[in-house]
Amino acid sequence: MAPPKQEPIHRNTLGMINIDPLQTGGRLPKVARETLMEWADGYSICDYCTGRLDKIATPPVRDFIHGELPDFLGMDEVRVTNGAREAKFIVMHSLCKPGDKVVVDANAHYTTFLCAERCEAEAVIVPSSGRPDYRVDPSGYNEAIDEADPELAVLTWPDGKYGNLADAKEVARICRDKGVPLLLNGAYAVGRMPVDGNRIGCSFISASGHKSMASSGPIGLLGASGEYADLVFRTSKTYDKKEVELLGCTARGSTLMTMMASFPHVLERVGNWGAEVEKARWFSSRMEEMGMVQMGQKPHNHDLMFFETPPFYEISKTAKGGRYFLYRELKKRGIHGIKPGLTKFFKLSTFGVPEGDLEKVLNAFSEMIRSNG
Amino acid sequence: MAPPKQEPIHRNTLGMINIDPLQTGGRLPKVARETLMEWADGYSICDYCTGRLDKIATPPVRDFIHGELPDFLGMDEVRVTNGAREAKFIVMHSLCKPGDKVVVDANAHYTTFLCAERCEAEAVIVPSSGRPDYRVDPSGYNEAIDEADPELAVLTWPDGKYGNLADAKEVARICRDKGVPLLLNGAYAVGRMPVDGNRIGCSFISASGHKSMASSGPIGLLGASGEYADLVFRTSKTYDKKEVELLGCTARGSTLMTMMASFPHVLERVGNWGAEVEKARWFSSRMEEMGMVQMGQKPHNHDLMFFETPPFYEISKTAKGGRYFLYRELKKRGIHGIKPGLTKFFKLSTFGVPEGDLEKVLNAFSEMIRSNG
Repeated sequence: MAPPKQEPIHRNTLGMINIDPLQTGGRLPKVARETLMEWADGYSICDYCTGRLDKIATPPVRDFIHGELPDFLGMDEVRVTNGAREAKFIVMHSLCKPGDKVVVDANAHYTTFLCAERCEAEAVIVPSSGRPDYRVDPSGYNEAIDEADPELAVLTWPDGKYGNLADAKEVARICRDKGVPLLLNGAYAVGRMPVDGNRIGCSFISASGHKSMASSGPIGLLGASGEYADLVFRTSKTYDKKEVELLGCTARGSTLMTMMASFPHVLERVGNWGAEVEKARWFSSRMEEMGMVQMGQKPHNHDLMFFETPPFYEISKTAKGGRYFLYRELKKRGIHGIKPGLTKFFKLSTFGVPEGDLEKVLNAFSEMIRSNG
Repeated sequence: MAPPKQEPIHRNTLGMINIDPLQTGGRLPKVARETLMEWADGYSICDYCTGRLDKIATPPVRDFIHGELPDFLGMDEVRVTNGAREAKFIVMHSLCKPGDKVVVDANAHYTTFLCAERCEAEAVIVPSSGRPDYRVDPSGYNEAIDEADPELAVLTWPDGKYGNLADAKEVARICRDKGVPLLLNGAYAVGRMPVDGNRIGCSFISASGHKSMASSGPIGLLGASGEYADLVFRTSKTYDKKEVELLGCTARGSTLMTMMASFPHVLERVGNWGAEVEKARWFSSRMEEMGMVQMGQKPHNHDLMFFETPPFYEISKTAKGGRYFLYRELKKRGIHGIKPGLTKFFKLSTFGVPEGDLEKVLNAFSEMIRSNG
């Protein structure tokens, strides 16, 4: 008997306009897809391995990790990791003992808190200004550090809720003055906009390939300043080539090949960041004309935006499907990325989405408002 | 000016006969490649996420992780991880404090020692019988546990050096009697051969998708018995849906989609394991007819085999290119997977390699021996 014909698992959002902030910076250019097809098999990247991922010459991993990436991030040493969260954990696990403290901005991603919890460290929060700006004032780091005497400070730049870009340089200055290393979590920055660790003066940068560097997930980066590189990338006592916190090798496969293949495309789009910010501001103003209220910094400096959406909340009170009406109406129009059930507020991203597609999104919103009186 | 045309990064071993043990179990079937093309983008798997990777219903991750995988491994709970090493670290980091001990077989993968070092735990080694069998006797666990009073024992099954399959059931019985949980590292077993954690009686299984489950790397599995699942998969105090040791989500992307798409193929090949063992034994006997000596268990029970190769060492003394002659000669014949510079010994794998291709490898070896007198 012949085995049943196996169907590929389909992704039904392909071809839709996707404005989910998780998705807009992770789309692969054609060259990365072509590369992926050649390197899709398991451990393909290890054909010519001589013992460590970042030293592989063929494919040119070594040049990428030790040449291009440090320049790109403005950090002395860079390694690939399995994601931004794994990069943050490497830093905390290297610096913190149980009971130690980590100062973290109030808008931080949940994984920052999980990393601290996994190390049995305590997260001490730098507050935000709350609604509507949710601004993190650098001076909050002053107070939190004085109070907590932490081993590490973290700034989420931008945060993944409101897309706010706090004054990282000033936060870094404060941390340096107090002798506390600063980890800049750039999961939504690196690969979208220019980020220069040297200029900012941070000790670490974490980045996300699947979120913002047009890479297949999961993959990330950890950049470290010379002062801390030997600590976080320390080698084993028994296997002197192998880096302990990386368990030898991290993103050992197709994920890294897509990041490398996408890199020229990423460099190009980072150079085009000004236009992305303009587009986000235009989109925000159009949303506000319809009665939505953009939270966070204004004018906004990033493609990730959070809107309060009172018109949709009003509609949901009487609409067929209740609070799911918005999701359904968008789906009908080929638009994906607003979480099902949300009508009071939602976040979205305009990054890399053509203006014509954003017009369709805006038209969809305005039609719904019009047709519901 | 038009941007320079970007070329994909090519893999020049494609189309070669690849007998590298790292590669033979990681090749994707066609259906997984087709699936990968749909899910290549960054965080594609998270289109319909409601907060945790293993709960995603579309694509059917939930059914895979909570239904198919526990059945497949014979373990109560299973999660995907970023690889076997990351799975081992999760277990050790959950069980061990600095200064604690972990009992490990002498043939263990280097990452097992790195995991212990990252936890500041001490690895206590169960010796092997040495050349030529390198056999790990279960009774060694008896002695090592009595001596070390460890928090965990690890058995590498099979080991990645000699492809030996120790008596895992007996090791598990000893560990259970002594009240020590056993982690079975099945990176070269799960996805190649039947593995039933229930029948073996281990507390944990780590597995590798890129090594043995026809998945794009890096991805792995961690299976846990009911007794330990709540500990290793404990949830956060502040984010009660999120599992701390997994930092929320692990293999969140294309790697998991390839594992899911390949799973029917993997099930089928596991059912065909007997034929793979026969093929390995046949290959080994043909090698020995040429003067090579297979190390490890004999007759062999796995496709990963280590050979001492005195004929090639003799040739290397006078050959052009010295000890690199073997690598070059194989390359000329379209054969990849023996590390450059090795002539005294090497390991290889016959898994999933068609008999005709293995004949070509054997013929290449015999030609080299003949033409060099």
